[in-house]
Amino acid sequence: MRIAVDAFGGDNAPDEIVKGSVQAVLNLNCEIILVGDETILKNKLAQAGYSGSKITIQHASEVIDGEDAPVDAVRHKKDSSMMVALSLCKNGEADAVVSAGNTGAYFAGAFHVLGRIKGIRRPALTAFMPTVNNTKSVIMDVGANADCKPENLEQFAQMGSLYAEKILGIQNPKVYLVNIGTEEHKGNELSQKAHALMKENKNINFCGNIESRELTAGFADVIICDGFTGNIILKAIEGTASALFGLIKKSFMKTLATKISALMMKPHIKELKSMLDYSEYGGVPLLGIDGVVIKAHGSSDAKAFENAVRSAVVFSETGLNADLKALYAQQQDQDAAKM
Amino acid sequence: MRIAVDAFGGDNAPDEIVKGSVQAVLNLNCEIILVGDETILKNKLAQAGYSGSKITIQHASEVIDGEDAPVDAVRHKKDSSMMVALSLCKNGEADAVVSAGNTGAYFAGAFHVLGRIKGIRRPALTAFMPTVNNTKSVIMDVGANADCKPENLEQFAQMGSLYAEKILGIQNPKVYLVNIGTEEHKGNELSQKAHALMKENKNINFCGNIESRELTAGFADVIICDGFTGNIILKAIEGTASALFGLIKKSFMKTLATKISALMMKPHIKELKSMLDYSEYGGVPLLGIDGVVIKAHGSSDAKAFENAVRSAVVFSETGLNADLKALYAQQQDQDAAKM
Repeated sequence: MRIAVDAFGGDNAPDEIVKGSVQAVLNLNCEIILVGDETILKNKLAQAGYSGSKITIQHASEVIDGEDAPVDAVRHKKDSSMMVALSLCKNGEADAVVSAGNTGAYFAGAFHVLGRIKGIRRPALTAFMPTVNNTKSVIMDVGANADCKPENLEQFAQMGSLYAEKILGIQNPKVYLVNIGTEEHKGNELSQKAHALMKENKNINFCGNIESRELTAGFADVIICDGFTGNIILKAIEGTASALFGLIKKSFMKTLATKISALMMKPHIKELKSMLDYSEYGGVPLLGIDGVVIKAHGSSDAKAFENAVRSAVVFSETGLNADLKALYAQQQDQDAAKM
Repeated sequence: MRIAVDAFGGDNAPDEIVKGSVQAVLNLNCEIILVGDETILKNKLAQAGYSGSKITIQHASEVIDGEDAPVDAVRHKKDSSMMVALSLCKNGEADAVVSAGNTGAYFAGAFHVLGRIKGIRRPALTAFMPTVNNTKSVIMDVGANADCKPENLEQFAQMGSLYAEKILGIQNPKVYLVNIGTEEHKGNELSQKAHALMKENKNINFCGNIESRELTAGFADVIICDGFTGNIILKAIEGTASALFGLIKKSFMKTLATKISALMMKPHIKELKSMLDYSEYGGVPLLGIDGVVIKAHGSSDAKAFENAVRSAVVFSETGLNADLKALYAQQQDQDAAKM
């Protein structure tokens, strides 16, 4: 399969993106089209020591950065590496696209260029939630839709269930709604209405509300929330873990005894850290987009980016989008039959 | 001063609440009215070995528990320990009220019984955010108002600033708005509109958006969000910290070497844990209520509850409510003068 890579998206672009792409074509069964400034990319590829035929370059003169407002970026930076990569996917020159760039612009661009799967109102961004059991949960939306309606959350639950089944191999995945209490009446207007809808939905295994202190406990397979809440949650967990590891490191440096402890604990702390390391998880799809669109973490290094490319390969192989299309076609038929 | 205590609120009521109240009257300059079933409370007081005159009992026949829907509880459980405690504050028999019970019901009850400070649209629940610098930030709202308008968040910022000044002694406290990006255009409709209002408000030192991964970094003095988001944040931080400490404990038990490390690290890990221990922080006020209404953590033990009573004493001594009244009276005068 051929993957269009936005070589100028993310904090460490283009260097780490190019390196990650080189590792990807060496380790995975794929070809890559690097999209971005041709001269720079030729140099970077040479620096990375790659001269094979599995990577080609597609020139794009502009770059969308983190400061760009999504809609403006899509409208005015048509020759950006991100938009050109999406177009390659649209016109069939690529089977998937991977970017570590501006999430909002990527989402808006994918929406604009590739469109939605018929029947899906709002595509969503998924992420893996690390758990204390070293399993993975799926959480969505984590930032694509800052404002959501209850019906959007219900659809996320359906898409997330299918994703957990296909990608994580979980049968009849347990779906939970993020809320500020486990009781049915708790929450804001959105969560109360979404709860009611999800409870009635026969296509998902809805198990009720989940409080954010339980998210890493591992009993939920699919965790549903609006994009604002999901983004806040991921970053709060990331920030807390990083702060705690920082404080533990300081504690280890206090006395000779603690320094010796540090040496003995080092491999175990490293193992713990890797459980929370986003670069291990690869990329996450924009679910509901009519195409394979994978988002890599903004701070991806080469390894993380290679893993994101791997996610694109796996996502394509599972045929998840075909299943989503079939599910929503079936629902629309049922809706039509009711009329 | 006299403090009305809801003796039947919280996971460990009434035992730990009674014990905490006994410690409070022994250590602090206050008297306590324990509110709840008289027979049980007499027994518990005797068990706690207290026979002094600084604790009296006010009978109340009902209990509001965590399952009760707030508005129903306020309407139908008028003789509950929580509602009677609030009434004692209303009719002047107590100067403050402290409860570890159902937050929603407490808020609704305080709103109903004591009312708001004139000019304040939505009172809010505050909390202390632990930081890596071992300083404290104020975060609000953390659960009283699940749905908010931009104007509510602007008022929270004013109340929070005054609170940080008075209780934490911070001059010109730096105010941040929780958002999913630092750029002005980021976020949901609520955060975008609140940002615009806060930017224009001359009474606060607004410094922009803060992402949830930075909350514990310590640079923000006052952190503003709606109650749904605030509650999600606190519990996500609590859950992550607790999960990590659990995993670290497991790592320490792996080999003889790590067990020795554990012994050497024990006091330092304990110190870290205490930084995140809510029981150390005492209670938090419902800011904007026309009375001193302090919420203790639901899982408060005796020590935590004593600290919550201490918070009530400190809050009363600072005269914060008088300042809030003066601020909003002044603003209303200004608004009237503009007409």
